[in-house]
Amino acid sequence: MSKVFVFGHRNPDTDAIASAITMAHLERSLDSALDIEAVALGSPGAETRHALDRFGVVAPRVIERARPDVDEVILVDHNERQQSVADIDDVTITKVVDHHRIANFETAAPLWFRAEPVGCTCTILSRMFGENSLQPPPDIAGLMVSAIISDTLLLHSPTTTDLDRRAATALADRAGIDLDTYGTELLRAGSDVGDASAAELIDRDAKSYTMGSTTVRVAQINTVDVDALLARRDEFLAAMNTEAQHEGYDLFLLLLTDVLKVDSDLLVVGAPVDAVEKALGVTVHDGHAKAPGIVSRKKQIVPQLTEVLRAT
Amino acid sequence: MSKVFVFGHRNPDTDAIASAITMAHLERSLDSALDIEAVALGSPGAETRHALDRFGVVAPRVIERARPDVDEVILVDHNERQQSVADIDDVTITKVVDHHRIANFETAAPLWFRAEPVGCTCTILSRMFGENSLQPPPDIAGLMVSAIISDTLLLHSPTTTDLDRRAATALADRAGIDLDTYGTELLRAGSDVGDASAAELIDRDAKSYTMGSTTVRVAQINTVDVDALLARRDEFLAAMNTEAQHEGYDLFLLLLTDVLKVDSDLLVVGAPVDAVEKALGVTVHDGHAKAPGIVSRKKQIVPQLTEVLRAT
Repeated sequence: MSKVFVFGHRNPDTDAIASAITMAHLERSLDSALDIEAVALGSPGAETRHALDRFGVVAPRVIERARPDVDEVILVDHNERQQSVADIDDVTITKVVDHHRIANFETAAPLWFRAEPVGCTCTILSRMFGENSLQPPPDIAGLMVSAIISDTLLLHSPTTTDLDRRAATALADRAGIDLDTYGTELLRAGSDVGDASAAELIDRDAKSYTMGSTTVRVAQINTVDVDALLARRDEFLAAMNTEAQHEGYDLFLLLLTDVLKVDSDLLVVGAPVDAVEKALGVTVHDGHAKAPGIVSRKKQIVPQLTEVLRAT
Repeated sequence: MSKVFVFGHRNPDTDAIASAITMAHLERSLDSALDIEAVALGSPGAETRHALDRFGVVAPRVIERARPDVDEVILVDHNERQQSVADIDDVTITKVVDHHRIANFETAAPLWFRAEPVGCTCTILSRMFGENSLQPPPDIAGLMVSAIISDTLLLHSPTTTDLDRRAATALADRAGIDLDTYGTELLRAGSDVGDASAAELIDRDAKSYTMGSTTVRVAQINTVDVDALLARRDEFLAAMNTEAQHEGYDLFLLLLTDVLKVDSDLLVVGAPVDAVEKALGVTVHDGHAKAPGIVSRKKQIVPQLTEVLRAT
């Protein structure tokens, strides 16, 4: 049997990395003959490194292309082509496990695809373990609960479902951690921006979308000190402008999210800004808007902005 | 809670109808407050009517549009927009259960999507009953096994997987039928073309695809007497030409499948014919080709033809 890669999206967050490692483990548990490797489309950030260190798991190696190493890939935590490996059109996608909208995804043949509108891909994987009467080992369970904490802001994001809550509780127990204590520690680790440049920060957790005829970039920085980031507003706006021109984004949104208060500020460059205001119910002044309660790109920005931009 | 429709593809076959009825039953079993109705995008054919009559299930009513009756729909046995309800772009798709390729499908928000590369949607639904520790009632089980028999030609099609075999055996037992006896009876019922016109026959089980820049129609007629259909070859080719011109299909393929011998003849109109020859490994003379062993549109025609037409 030829080798298979499993990976999450570009600019991997904790769920992208943890899901790949978990899915590789699950697939191997179900078919020991399978030659499968979890890889990543980027290096883990501070939050993910914290989780990997805490549970003693080695970070997956970073790949640029799938071929010629493999002809078949499994996608986790994404399905849109532009968020995937560079040569995605040259390989066969055999499976997908995801919790995002489905778009820019097309296959020639039937495949195994599982998406559920839950807060985290690792929640779906946790259900898949259960359906197969399996349990993840404690280190993998630790990574999985880390991903749920990260994606749902410790179960406070509006994306959180009962299935996420149930999975997080069970996985924390399995990993031998206190959910609240470890969760706060993990979110703090992920919100440490250190002395990183604005250009670096806006690329750490950023995704591209095609909405109608508009190319949109949506980046998010988690923090426990929004004011410190807002003091660097001009630096962020300049970096966003430069990247938008360089990469051809019509609109660039940056969400500065307070992970403990579960609230955000929004920075915007490009056009149409009125579409952003209409979609999100915010008022943009000089590239800045208060975005109270908006913390989820997937649930509170992408669907609303897609609808407005498709209608224009 | 507002009402939800669940339906299979246009020109419904037995799986499209049975999956809709089964999914409505399963959803209701999991949430008794749910107001869900199985509907259809066309009247059942002879085979499906045979199954409905045999198990005493009423055919779902036929709808033209989803709105204004519902704002939310569940798709079974299809996902491609052009195979769905006319106003699919105006409603929200909340769930999909399917065993086809994924294409021409895009949502603004995350949804529940489950696809598996098995022979029949009812096989996936059978697994979902099991995962939820539920059993379908005998009449629904009878419809489900009918769908598996239909889609896999009584487990002889190359699309058949071990999961289909296992589901069919369990469902036949649950429905109280002998799989082989009832299966042959059902396939015979479905292959009775009666005195239907060629124009009617080529539309009974037909699907449209966009492959690269080519619009392709692929129809299939199941029969136990291919020679009787081949004697009407000129009538079929004329009807296919008329419909291709009327509907704007570049290519029209008609598969005449002997359901007992599990073998086909192929009729082709439009262009490029050389792409069909290359994709399927057949030789077309005067619009006709022998297609030995080709019985599955989904597995043996669509992926191969998509690959060739995308490359042109």
